[in-house]
Amino acid sequence: MGKLLVVGSVALDTVRTPFGEATEVLGGSATFFSVAASYFTNVELIAVIGEDFPEAHLSFLKSRHIDVAGLEKRQGQTFRWKGEYSYQLNEARTLDTRLNVFETFRPQIAAQYRSPGMLFLGNIDPELQLDVLNQVQRPSVVACDTMNFWIEGKREALWRVLEKVDILIINDGEARLLGQDANLVQVAKTILAKGPKHLIIKRGEYGVLMFNQKQVFGAPAFPLEQVKDPTGAGDTFAGGFMGYLSATGNLSDAAIRQAIVFGSVMASFTVEAFSLDRLRVLDYKEIEARFREFKRLTHFEDLS
Amino acid sequence: MGKLLVVGSVALDTVRTPFGEATEVLGGSATFFSVAASYFTNVELIAVIGEDFPEAHLSFLKSRHIDVAGLEKRQGQTFRWKGEYSYQLNEARTLDTRLNVFETFRPQIAAQYRSPGMLFLGNIDPELQLDVLNQVQRPSVVACDTMNFWIEGKREALWRVLEKVDILIINDGEARLLGQDANLVQVAKTILAKGPKHLIIKRGEYGVLMFNQKQVFGAPAFPLEQVKDPTGAGDTFAGGFMGYLSATGNLSDAAIRQAIVFGSVMASFTVEAFSLDRLRVLDYKEIEARFREFKRLTHFEDLS
Repeated sequence: MGKLLVVGSVALDTVRTPFGEATEVLGGSATFFSVAASYFTNVELIAVIGEDFPEAHLSFLKSRHIDVAGLEKRQGQTFRWKGEYSYQLNEARTLDTRLNVFETFRPQIAAQYRSPGMLFLGNIDPELQLDVLNQVQRPSVVACDTMNFWIEGKREALWRVLEKVDILIINDGEARLLGQDANLVQVAKTILAKGPKHLIIKRGEYGVLMFNQKQVFGAPAFPLEQVKDPTGAGDTFAGGFMGYLSATGNLSDAAIRQAIVFGSVMASFTVEAFSLDRLRVLDYKEIEARFREFKRLTHFEDLS
Repeated sequence: MGKLLVVGSVALDTVRTPFGEATEVLGGSATFFSVAASYFTNVELIAVIGEDFPEAHLSFLKSRHIDVAGLEKRQGQTFRWKGEYSYQLNEARTLDTRLNVFETFRPQIAAQYRSPGMLFLGNIDPELQLDVLNQVQRPSVVACDTMNFWIEGKREALWRVLEKVDILIINDGEARLLGQDANLVQVAKTILAKGPKHLIIKRGEYGVLMFNQKQVFGAPAFPLEQVKDPTGAGDTFAGGFMGYLSATGNLSDAAIRQAIVFGSVMASFTVEAFSLDRLRVLDYKEIEARFREFKRLTHFEDLS
């Protein structure tokens, strides 16, 4: 089994959807990522929490065998996010963001994490992503996420990050903003020319597209009877994807395609409940069973 | 080779997209349907045109071996539609609709068409769809399309149609309106309980979902470097889908899945040019080649 280092955010979320609400529950992109990845590989988590972070959440992460020695506890409050979704469930409306201790987060990579197996740079300031890259020995695979705020505000720094990463994982709106085109094939050409070998575009309920210099892979999202809370779906996708790649240890075409399906499978579980509640009770047999359902969902016979 | 009867509209379109414009070109849902289906099966077209319908368009349909003896020419002008698309290309803005001779279209099925091999009821008043069904001997497969206008205005008549059809082919917005739920799995349950054995939901650039009582099939849309004009993509999909089913003569699971891919392949060609211009110069080898590319787009290894 490989090792996977992730740098990102841990938060306490308050979420309302048409199907219920959850107050001050475990959230944060690196949290969803780590827990999803923990089903496949050894995860090392670098993030920051405040003094108020519940001990039970730490215990849960440890129960998933996530290495939380790099989870820095600082004076002050944990990052909080509050949002709601309409019936379409496709986009969160942010009601309140309190960065708290996350505002001054400057990831310091301790000695034991400086030779990561693979590395995922969560959605933080591109300058900090570069800073993390400078602190570690370059692993076999570096992937990263970003968001509109950085694409608009720190485009130059972001391109410098992208020169150094193997895989960029973003949603379609972010991809169009970064590639400055409505057509995703054109967007992929622009982005792949800057450095990343693989571009993965998340399209929420519509699935995922992966572009590299040689090919394209497309997978629908798994159709679910009930989606309760889409929060963390994209981060869970990235966690399942990178977790599986870390387990296989390679970037072969077959591995990447299967990793995308595992990411989609993990995301399909996350949205079935609030926070990480579905992942808390998930076992690997369920993951394999849904992977096989995914195969049945997408399979068709080739021409004879 | 089977026979496929289609009842619907033939029109002259004026379309503007960010990539160009076309004035008074061949359009109409039954036109796109027929030409796409003509690559797979024998098509019989029932529709209405005005005295102004250009002879060249008739010649083109005949060159595709489409039986146009049921294409009624009446006094007055051909149905005209005028629309434009923004850079997103996902939804047309209708600028002008002139039904002209289509307004009083009452399909009379001539004796030679009353035992169709398969039947596609294009997007017309559900009362007229019922009327067509009453005029013919029920074929092995009946499929139909509809639109928001009928779902909102003639829901009861539409449910009566759906009791009698095997396959409903609509887009996601229409499906949600008809099934009165945001969740497509719930929508599918509602609709399948009313009669259709298969529900096919078209999602434009995001691909297609097919639901029946036993399973779900999902296919992405083929990612294209340039989409010039999305007009007719959905009708082309339906034509390729039904054309292939008509050629195979059965509704086996494997046939339906392949038919959906052939429909997607045909739609991917249509949007590469205005009107039916890409289909005019298409040959079957290109269709097969893109089908195989579609297989590479979606294939991943199952778990060992």
